[in-house]
Amino acid sequence: MTDTMPRKLPFPVVDNCLQVGGVPLTRLAQRVGRTPFYAYDRGLLTARAKTLRATLPRQVRLHYSVKANPMPALVQHMAGLVDGCDVSSAGELKVVLDTGMAPEHISFSGPGKREDELARAVAAGVLINIESMRELQCVARSGDRLGIRPRVAVRVNPDFELKSSGMRMGGGAKQFGIDAELAPQVLRQIAALGLDFVGLHVFSGSQCLKAEAIIEAQARTLELAVRLAQHAPQDMRLLNMGGGFGVPYFSGENELDIRSIGDHLAQVVSRLEAQLPQAQLAIELGRYLVSEAGIYVTRIIDRKVSRGHAFLVADGGMHHHLAASGNLGQVIRKNYPVLIGNRVAAHNSENTSVVGPLCTPLDLIADKIDLPPAKIGDLVVVLQSGAYGLTASPTAFLGHPVPEEVLV
Amino acid sequence: MTDTMPRKLPFPVVDNCLQVGGVPLTRLAQRVGRTPFYAYDRGLLTARAKTLRATLPRQVRLHYSVKANPMPALVQHMAGLVDGCDVSSAGELKVVLDTGMAPEHISFSGPGKREDELARAVAAGVLINIESMRELQCVARSGDRLGIRPRVAVRVNPDFELKSSGMRMGGGAKQFGIDAELAPQVLRQIAALGLDFVGLHVFSGSQCLKAEAIIEAQARTLELAVRLAQHAPQDMRLLNMGGGFGVPYFSGENELDIRSIGDHLAQVVSRLEAQLPQAQLAIELGRYLVSEAGIYVTRIIDRKVSRGHAFLVADGGMHHHLAASGNLGQVIRKNYPVLIGNRVAAHNSENTSVVGPLCTPLDLIADKIDLPPAKIGDLVVVLQSGAYGLTASPTAFLGHPVPEEVLV
Repeated sequence: MTDTMPRKLPFPVVDNCLQVGGVPLTRLAQRVGRTPFYAYDRGLLTARAKTLRATLPRQVRLHYSVKANPMPALVQHMAGLVDGCDVSSAGELKVVLDTGMAPEHISFSGPGKREDELARAVAAGVLINIESMRELQCVARSGDRLGIRPRVAVRVNPDFELKSSGMRMGGGAKQFGIDAELAPQVLRQIAALGLDFVGLHVFSGSQCLKAEAIIEAQARTLELAVRLAQHAPQDMRLLNMGGGFGVPYFSGENELDIRSIGDHLAQVVSRLEAQLPQAQLAIELGRYLVSEAGIYVTRIIDRKVSRGHAFLVADGGMHHHLAASGNLGQVIRKNYPVLIGNRVAAHNSENTSVVGPLCTPLDLIADKIDLPPAKIGDLVVVLQSGAYGLTASPTAFLGHPVPEEVLV
Repeated sequence: MTDTMPRKLPFPVVDNCLQVGGVPLTRLAQRVGRTPFYAYDRGLLTARAKTLRATLPRQVRLHYSVKANPMPALVQHMAGLVDGCDVSSAGELKVVLDTGMAPEHISFSGPGKREDELARAVAAGVLINIESMRELQCVARSGDRLGIRPRVAVRVNPDFELKSSGMRMGGGAKQFGIDAELAPQVLRQIAALGLDFVGLHVFSGSQCLKAEAIIEAQARTLELAVRLAQHAPQDMRLLNMGGGFGVPYFSGENELDIRSIGDHLAQVVSRLEAQLPQAQLAIELGRYLVSEAGIYVTRIIDRKVSRGHAFLVADGGMHHHLAASGNLGQVIRKNYPVLIGNRVAAHNSENTSVVGPLCTPLDLIADKIDLPPAKIGDLVVVLQSGAYGLTASPTAFLGHPVPEEVLV
C-alpha cells in the first residue's frame, strides 16, 4: 500500500485487483470494450443512501441533486433510493421524468431559468424554486396558458452563509435565489398571482466537511423559515434545507460527522412539527450520495523518464475529469486519490506523475505521487469520481473519443 | 465607451451594434435562431493571416494548430490561408483531411498518442512528431503492415524554456517530446527502423506576449536543431519551431510585437539556409491566428439586484466558455473583455456582474465590471473567444443545450 491510498477503500480488492460491483476491474475494462471509462457501483450507491437514512431522522425527506451525476441509469437507480430529485435544467428534468418519478417529488432550481424551461417545468407539474420576480411572471403566464396552477417554492438567499464550505451559495450579494429580506414581497406576489405556494428552498453552500458549520446553517435556516412563514400565502408544506455535505478528496481531509448532523436534525424536526406542523423537511444531496461510488479508469499507454522524473502517460485526462486535473474551481491543485487498479498494493513504490494525452501541461491526473511501479497496459483509477466527473469536463477538447459510463 | 472595452475593437460598430462579418449582431442572433452561440469572422481570420505573412519572412511556413479551434468550417477556411496544419488527435486529423489539405502538409503531435491513432496517421501519410520510443515502434509496425515508409519528425523537449509564457511546455522534466539529450539515440533508432526522417519539432511554450522571450527561444531552437542535425539519418527538411505567440486578454496586457519577431526570423532563415540548406522553417500558431476573430454571444435573461449589487443573468456561461469563467488554468481570475453587443457605448455605466444559468458560483462571465446599463434581451459579447472556447468547455454540465458555432 502506498501513501496515496485513501484511508478506507470503498471497493474490495481481490488478488490485488479492485472489484467494482463484484467484477474485477480488468474484466470490467474488457466488458466496456475500451478505456477510458467511468464506473459506478450500484451496491455502494445503495449502501450510502441506507447509511444516511439510518442516521437521519425518519421524517427527513432525502432528495438527490441530479447535477452531481445525471447518467440516466444512475438516476434511475437513485430514484428508487430517495424521496425526490432536484434538477437544474430542462435537460435534467427530462432524465428524471423518464425514470417514472412522480412530478410532485421533483423540484427545479437555477439562477437563470429560460422561459422555455419554465414552461416545460410547469407543464410537467414539478415544483419550481422561484429565484426572481421575472420567473414568477413567466410561471404565472405558463400556468394561465395551460389552465393549471403552477406549484412554486421560494429559493431564499439567506442572510448568512455556510461556513467552511467549498462553495458559498448564500449570504451577501448573490445571483442565487431571492434575498431573505425581499422574500415577503415575493410571497405576496405569489398570492396575488394565485400560484400554489409549497414552501422554501435554502441552499447556503456545498462541499463542507465540518458538521458544526452545517448544523449552524440548518439551525439558522429553520429560524429563517419560521420568520418567513408569517408572510406565506398558505401553509408551508416543504422546507428544503439544501445539503452542503462534503466528501473528503485530499489527504488530511476527514469524513463528515453525519451522526452529529442527524442528532441535530431530530431537534429541527421537533421544532418544525411544533412551529410549522404542515411542513416536511427535505435535505438535498448530490456529491455526498454518489461521489464515493464512482471511479474514473484510464489505461497507461506510455511510460517515459524525462530528466530523472517518471511519467505515466494515460489515454485519458483533464478532458474527461476536469476536477481531478485541478481545474474545476480549485485554487491550489491537489491530487485526487489515485491507484493502479490492477496492482493496488506493492512492496515498493515509485514517485511519478500521471499525465493525460493532451498537448497541455494542464492535463495532469496526479503530480509527483508514490504509486506501485506501473507498466503500459495498467489501469489508473481515480477514486471519488462519482460526482462532477464526466459532465463537468470538456470532453471535446482536442478531439478524443468521449468515455463510456457504466453502472455495475 | 466603458473601461471594459478593449483598446482596439476588431469588429466595426454601426448604430451602436457590433458587426460580425458585416452582419449586425442582433440580426446574426436571429439567423442563428437561438442564443448562446460562438461567431467567427472570416474576414478577420483572413486579415490576421495576411498581416502575419507580410511581417514574417516569405520563407517561413505558416502552420495552423487545429486544437485552438477545430470547427470544420473554420478549419476549411484556415486551410486556404496557411501552409500546413498540426493536429493533436485522430479526431482533429479527420477534420483536416476532410478539407482536402495534402497529407504532406499535416503533422500530428501529442504526448499520449494511442496505437490506433498512430496507425491512422501512418495510413493517412501525415508527418508524425515522435514523442517516445514506444511511438517509434508503433509507427514502424504500422508502416510494415501497410507496406509504406512512415514520415516522422522528432519532437524535442528542449533544455531551455520559453520565458514569460502562459504555459511552459519545454525545459525541465516534461511529458512532451524527447529530452534533447536523448534525441541522438532516437535519431539512430529512426535510421535503424528505416523510417523517413523529415525534421524536428520544438515547442517550448505558449501564450507569450514578450517578443524578446520568443526571439530568445527561437535562437536557442535553431542552435539545438543545428546540433541535433549531426545525428540525423538524412537531411533535415523541416524545422517546426512551434509558436508561443500570445494574445492580450486582460487589461494591462499589450499586443505582441511581431515585427521584432519577423526581423529576427529573417536572420534565422539566413542561418538555416547556410547551415541546414534543405530545411524549411515552420511556425505553428493556434490561438494567435483565431482568438481575436471569435466572440461568444449570450443573451441576458434576467436582471437582479441582490443586496445592492446588480447581476445580469445570461443564458450561457462557464459550460460554454470555461476560459472566460477563469477555470482553464488561470491562477487568478480576471475578466475577459466583455461588452453589450447591441449597446456598445453609452453615456453612463453600471457596475455589474454577468453570471450564467448554472447553480454554481463558478459560473461567472464577468465580475464587477462597468457596462452600459443593460436590459433583458440584450446580447453579452465575450471578445477574444476564437480559441480554446467551445471545445475547451464542459458543455454537458447541468444539461443545457450545446451552443451553435457560425463562421460569418
